[in-house]
Amino acid sequence: MITIDLLHESKEPFYEQIYKYIRDEIKAGTLKKNTKLPSSRGLATHLAVSRNTIDTAYAQLVSEGYIESIPKKGYYVCELEATVGEELLEDDWVEEEKAEENYIVDFSPNGVDMENFPYNQWRKLIKEVMINDNSELFQSGDPQGDREFRKTIRLYLHQSRGVNCRENQIIIGAGMDYLLLLLGMLLQNDKKIAFENAVYPQAYNVFKSLGFQSEAIPLDSQGMVVQELEKSGCDIAYVTPSHQYPTGIVMPISRRLKLLSWANEKDGRYIIEDDYDSEFRYHGRPIPALQGNDRKGNVIYLGTFSKGIAPAIRVSYMVLPQSLYKKFKEKYSFYSSTVSRIDQAVINRFMIEGHFERHLNRMRGIYKAKHDCLLKELKQLGNQISVFGESAGLHLLIAYHGEKTEETLIQLAKEKQVKVYPMSSYTGGESIFPYPVFILGFARLSEEDIKKGISILKKVW
Amino acid sequence: MITIDLLHESKEPFYEQIYKYIRDEIKAGTLKKNTKLPSSRGLATHLAVSRNTIDTAYAQLVSEGYIESIPKKGYYVCELEATVGEELLEDDWVEEEKAEENYIVDFSPNGVDMENFPYNQWRKLIKEVMINDNSELFQSGDPQGDREFRKTIRLYLHQSRGVNCRENQIIIGAGMDYLLLLLGMLLQNDKKIAFENAVYPQAYNVFKSLGFQSEAIPLDSQGMVVQELEKSGCDIAYVTPSHQYPTGIVMPISRRLKLLSWANEKDGRYIIEDDYDSEFRYHGRPIPALQGNDRKGNVIYLGTFSKGIAPAIRVSYMVLPQSLYKKFKEKYSFYSSTVSRIDQAVINRFMIEGHFERHLNRMRGIYKAKHDCLLKELKQLGNQISVFGESAGLHLLIAYHGEKTEETLIQLAKEKQVKVYPMSSYTGGESIFPYPVFILGFARLSEEDIKKGISILKKVW
Repeated sequence: MITIDLLHESKEPFYEQIYKYIRDEIKAGTLKKNTKLPSSRGLATHLAVSRNTIDTAYAQLVSEGYIESIPKKGYYVCELEATVGEELLEDDWVEEEKAEENYIVDFSPNGVDMENFPYNQWRKLIKEVMINDNSELFQSGDPQGDREFRKTIRLYLHQSRGVNCRENQIIIGAGMDYLLLLLGMLLQNDKKIAFENAVYPQAYNVFKSLGFQSEAIPLDSQGMVVQELEKSGCDIAYVTPSHQYPTGIVMPISRRLKLLSWANEKDGRYIIEDDYDSEFRYHGRPIPALQGNDRKGNVIYLGTFSKGIAPAIRVSYMVLPQSLYKKFKEKYSFYSSTVSRIDQAVINRFMIEGHFERHLNRMRGIYKAKHDCLLKELKQLGNQISVFGESAGLHLLIAYHGEKTEETLIQLAKEKQVKVYPMSSYTGGESIFPYPVFILGFARLSEEDIKKGISILKKVW
Repeated sequence: MITIDLLHESKEPFYEQIYKYIRDEIKAGTLKKNTKLPSSRGLATHLAVSRNTIDTAYAQLVSEGYIESIPKKGYYVCELEATVGEELLEDDWVEEEKAEENYIVDFSPNGVDMENFPYNQWRKLIKEVMINDNSELFQSGDPQGDREFRKTIRLYLHQSRGVNCRENQIIIGAGMDYLLLLLGMLLQNDKKIAFENAVYPQAYNVFKSLGFQSEAIPLDSQGMVVQELEKSGCDIAYVTPSHQYPTGIVMPISRRLKLLSWANEKDGRYIIEDDYDSEFRYHGRPIPALQGNDRKGNVIYLGTFSKGIAPAIRVSYMVLPQSLYKKFKEKYSFYSSTVSRIDQAVINRFMIEGHFERHLNRMRGIYKAKHDCLLKELKQLGNQISVFGESAGLHLLIAYHGEKTEETLIQLAKEKQVKVYPMSSYTGGESIFPYPVFILGFARLSEEDIKKGISILKKVW
């Protein structure tokens, strides 16, 4: 007979206590293989519980394979061969928590201003989308993203970015990194990728992690130098023509056409156009996308809602040229979409109902104010610094012409809790300028923060 | 002088009309390189518009690189070298739309019952999460997923699945496919993967698309046959122990321990445990996860909210053993999270406030009713068929013992607009049973649909 102290006050039902007791006895080897268990009636009487309780416990032990029921004979302990070892010790795993550095002013080029987000509008749209009849929205959807949403994006890209495509060519994914992963699979990694130097590190890291070889191609005042690209032996060029990241260079039409003819010279050559923040330009209209001038299907266009709406809304899109789209359909279209259909529906309405355009116009004004404020404040530093890459995007650059080194400048700022981002971190350590250059992001900073930050830099530099 | 018919009734401002006219003239080659443009004052008078209008148009042309401004001389057309080709012809691209097949009753094993989803509760949580002060939630978050959410998942996995882990080991991603992609990068693809035969095709396809070699390992009544696994030369085994997909076999503890000791025999061996639908079991308590018995860190545990909440909520999670977690931190932790932080926060509250547990209990009841109804209806088909893989999950299996072939049976059902899913599509075409076997999913069907569907099958089979 098995004797178990059943805890009456426990939240665990009796059957579970009995099941666990016997299970652990078997695991521990106390109950040896082929041992016959007491009949459920017998054990029920012994433990003064209902027979049902015992049957349930035994049934669970059978279904997990600890015991087996042999007809007309009863329940026997199964052979486990291997035994279940000890619990891992708590302390053989170290949780590393890196200490939070805190800054008064952080000139990070990432992040956006969320103080002016139309939360009420957004909530309203979610509410509309979430009406019960919409239960279809909770089932899995089109791997490329919902067609209606892709139609909306197509229209937006055509009207505001000059991109020519059909909604079939559009693939919606949870963030740029994911789309770059997909793209990495589409472009065999026996190909070499040319990156701009300075470069958007995230893209570089993704392709590196996929085993791609790469070359850093120098920039001149017009962007990636095509002669250098030709020398590099690369077949894929990753560029940010509308607003080079981080230097802010705008690639003029002549350079764009040169790049396109480079892509035309050989089969399997592609230009990856990362149009990460083209929505924000503070003089004149936005620079149209390079893709709009592509006639041979050599351009892969990448865009995101991270800057225009919010980074946490993980929605980006990729426009594939016909050749790659066909390959995608054949080989990779089984990958299920990574974007919640509710998010797709909400953003779709946000765009269709004109909120997106209104929001962009509003933010353009707000960012311009911050941008102009930063420019104005920077004048305090006199000709010790010069500004470039301004009048677009969510950051600008300053070149430092004084005596101090990059490290010193970073350190001096840090001591006063101001965080600045050196160009060298975008050029793999070595510097492409004869003097220290810093990227100053302003999207998340209030004008007060900007003033505070710059006046501190003035003091310490 | 340039003469442009400015449309007064057009929505386009004059400066834009002028900018586009000159741009297109240059693209078309009508305005040759080095042509001097009229002075802005001159053109302004000529077109009877303000000089400002011309300046804006010229400024835009300059910033896009169509013209350049030479100090004291004026504006000149830039050299484009290559010319911009013709627009792509609309018809050189075929949009392939596959015709929607429509069925009265579709026994798909995918999808879930969304009629009984707590929409109001969900809306309420979104509303709570979406309060303005939460603007931090809209900035990008932890690549692994927000720590608070991982803590909640850790607790859930420990209590209801017997999984032992720390929140650091948990990686949250937008769907299983994405997590399998990450995993594919973590496990070098020089390794061979053993899949169960029959197999969950999505997992097989992901690893195939990443270039992994694989072997199909036969199943016996206890699941993957370890002797065959040893022969296969594979170092990674992909298994669904709690409820084999699609056959529904529950792997008993003895087989689990054998599998674990197989993994222990050699360094770099891993077991991938896909715990895709373990929440739903209709007799006794759920079968605990294999990971709970892992003492050496050989098990990678995968779970999802697709079945428990909704497929469109693209949230799954992966528990990495220490060795792989370290590699992840070193090489892949720069990948930004693919899950919206709002979704993370909503699900987190859904769990913490006990709604998830209540929802699961409720759905367990609803699915059990559908499951039992299907079983009852299937009796109509008599001993022409036998049922297996029942009493758990969202589908069961039927073996057909009559004369007709699989194709015939599918066709006969299809003619009456009933869709059934043959086992052969889970075994790469060739059949592992001497007779036709079909997977019948019931999650999305009402009891009426189930009755209708089965009575049709009775008639035609």
